[in-house]
Amino acid sequence: MALIVHKYGGTSMGSTERIRNVAKRVAKWARAGHQMVVVPSAMSGETNRLLGLAKELAPASHTDEYARELDMIASTGEQVSVGLLSIALQAEGMQAVSYAGWQVPVKTDSAYTKARIESIDDVKVRADLAAGKVVIITGFQGIDGAGNITTLGRGGSDTSAVAVAAAMKADECLIYTDVDGVYTTDPRIVPEARRLHTISFEEMLEMASLGSKVLQIRSVEFAGKYRVPLRVLSSFTPWDIPIDEEAKSGTLITFEEDEKMEQAVVSGIAFNRDEAKITVMGVPDKPGIAYQILGAVADANIDVDVILQNVSHDGRTDFSFTVHRNDYAKTVDLLNSKVIPALGAEKLVGDTKICKVSIVGIGMRSHAGVAATMFRALSEEGINIQMITTSEIKTSVVIDEKYMELAVRALHKSFDLDQEAG
Amino acid sequence: MALIVHKYGGTSMGSTERIRNVAKRVAKWARAGHQMVVVPSAMSGETNRLLGLAKELAPASHTDEYARELDMIASTGEQVSVGLLSIALQAEGMQAVSYAGWQVPVKTDSAYTKARIESIDDVKVRADLAAGKVVIITGFQGIDGAGNITTLGRGGSDTSAVAVAAAMKADECLIYTDVDGVYTTDPRIVPEARRLHTISFEEMLEMASLGSKVLQIRSVEFAGKYRVPLRVLSSFTPWDIPIDEEAKSGTLITFEEDEKMEQAVVSGIAFNRDEAKITVMGVPDKPGIAYQILGAVADANIDVDVILQNVSHDGRTDFSFTVHRNDYAKTVDLLNSKVIPALGAEKLVGDTKICKVSIVGIGMRSHAGVAATMFRALSEEGINIQMITTSEIKTSVVIDEKYMELAVRALHKSFDLDQEAG
Repeated sequence: MALIVHKYGGTSMGSTERIRNVAKRVAKWARAGHQMVVVPSAMSGETNRLLGLAKELAPASHTDEYARELDMIASTGEQVSVGLLSIALQAEGMQAVSYAGWQVPVKTDSAYTKARIESIDDVKVRADLAAGKVVIITGFQGIDGAGNITTLGRGGSDTSAVAVAAAMKADECLIYTDVDGVYTTDPRIVPEARRLHTISFEEMLEMASLGSKVLQIRSVEFAGKYRVPLRVLSSFTPWDIPIDEEAKSGTLITFEEDEKMEQAVVSGIAFNRDEAKITVMGVPDKPGIAYQILGAVADANIDVDVILQNVSHDGRTDFSFTVHRNDYAKTVDLLNSKVIPALGAEKLVGDTKICKVSIVGIGMRSHAGVAATMFRALSEEGINIQMITTSEIKTSVVIDEKYMELAVRALHKSFDLDQEAG
Repeated sequence: MALIVHKYGGTSMGSTERIRNVAKRVAKWARAGHQMVVVPSAMSGETNRLLGLAKELAPASHTDEYARELDMIASTGEQVSVGLLSIALQAEGMQAVSYAGWQVPVKTDSAYTKARIESIDDVKVRADLAAGKVVIITGFQGIDGAGNITTLGRGGSDTSAVAVAAAMKADECLIYTDVDGVYTTDPRIVPEARRLHTISFEEMLEMASLGSKVLQIRSVEFAGKYRVPLRVLSSFTPWDIPIDEEAKSGTLITFEEDEKMEQAVVSGIAFNRDEAKITVMGVPDKPGIAYQILGAVADANIDVDVILQNVSHDGRTDFSFTVHRNDYAKTVDLLNSKVIPALGAEKLVGDTKICKVSIVGIGMRSHAGVAATMFRALSEEGINIQMITTSEIKTSVVIDEKYMELAVRALHKSFDLDQEAG
């Protein structure tokens, strides 16, 4: 008998008929002898509907002031889901009980609309499990020290599920979603893309942060921190497939680098075209320039991704970084009006038509020449590399966005990702 | 400066535009120097939508088993309302904070879907009021001793508002609704029906229990018990009418029989056609027959309204009572199968085509001959009276339902209810 956490997304909870299917699937697991905790999202569209009502009453530019109230409103979507799923399970003949985050309680800090989980009390949940009940807990939300409802931000239900699994020391956390696992790259771009049976959580973290939308990045961080085995699998398989088959489907995100793991050097190709590149040219090369440039950007609450500083020549250097495209205009204004005059830099050049393509693989740690293979593959396609940045298990390049699909396909092929690892 | 509680129904909260109007009205009161607590209902249609989803997942006949979950689900409607109203008030430049029932907390028993309020903690609310905030509290719901969400049943937001007003020792509780007050009878039946400026809470209790749908009866009981001055008024007046005018509009339900009260003998005519009449005929007249008949009915959770036992003749008597029409068939079955054989009664006769018409007035206490005036008026119209029952401030008759409108009009006229009291 294992303790299993299931998480179902908004699409899986999208209608009473789908909720009934979720209940049948959970009942199958419970009848197989597992202790079950389920974390569902709000029914698809509901969170948008609720926040849309709030938006009609208050200008979007002032949402910070209303953040506490937005959480009061948005958290109800998941509360409806847990109640409905509990009824559906009871209609299936199971014992079930639902809890809102504050009832467990799931304690968070007070950062409304983007709160972080601090602790989860498992006493009630354990007692219910011991009494043979399926326990259903709202995703996405908790309660702060003063008794206010908080939410974790978009996609927060993944994080809730992993946090519950960590607190309960669950044997596995299964994230049911609308894809059937993690792929070597996006199958819409590379038809030969292959589902990975396992991936290390570090690789998953890079894949998630690089634009693979399967899991919310915070949930992967959480899983790594608390060593929660996490499985991503499809909620669109029939609910009554054999449980042995279902338990091995999808992709297992593991923190153990055991012998059985696929030994490919590169596990996947990630990419995104959400970023824009900014270069401050001709910066006098003195200590503190990175701080002078990026400090001002950070103060404006703009997140920076890739950062590069070239070696200087003639006492001047070029400083480049990328920001989200939505922040591009704001960043350029900020630099031109304040930072560049203060620094005595020559000029700013920017480009919004870029993309970032990355190879990710825990095997890169112990294999030389991986980056070289990447650069050769891109060179053979005539793709110019604008920026390069590396970490222990990832190499990213910034290139012209028109080459994105070409680059992803070339890299997928050159690392033999269409073949099962030997 | 007074402490005022406003309650707004689902129609008043029915769209973001209407919520904005509620916010403007509340802001007007706050700016006039009053401390404001607001109790809104769910947006109209929302509670039905939520319970409809639940119904799709579970057969309606088993709702008792799912009652805890129904409360989890239904309570979210009001939680959305308080959040939206708080945002609307903040957008008006007011300070505002919203609370779900469990946050105040509003403590109730554990009777899911029909819980009763046990206590309300006023510490948080007082602190917020002292800090200059408008406090918005969900209607309809609370928390039981074990931390479960409970709801008070349909119309429970009236009760919530009165209970909050009682706990806060508010100066007045204003119930904004879609009628502009309490009338001498239903204006759709008697066009001359007149709005009452004041009515005693005992009269209101009789009017409410007799089918006048203006206020939920439990809220009137609560107001009487805790001596909360209660005003029913329209939410459809423009929000910016002068506050002095608004404060005197509608109908004040008062517990003080002061000199200024309207001194009419009869304050209003109430009626309903929800009931059915059952007579057990030829019951052997022995001690305990009322218990034998009504005990069985009560055990089946059927509410009985009018009860009459005639004097016996030849050692046998007839025993009559009324039940809700929805319970009629069940009651007849129960009596025929079990009670009548055990009693040795002759037979049962029933009639679903009846109505009950009542005159209500605190003045009846000290005026003789009121019932006689009622009977004469009905007699002059040729209306046969089937049952009569009286209390200190009410006389009710059961008549053929086809005469209902005629009876109401005749009584309204014979007690001069179309004239302002002198």
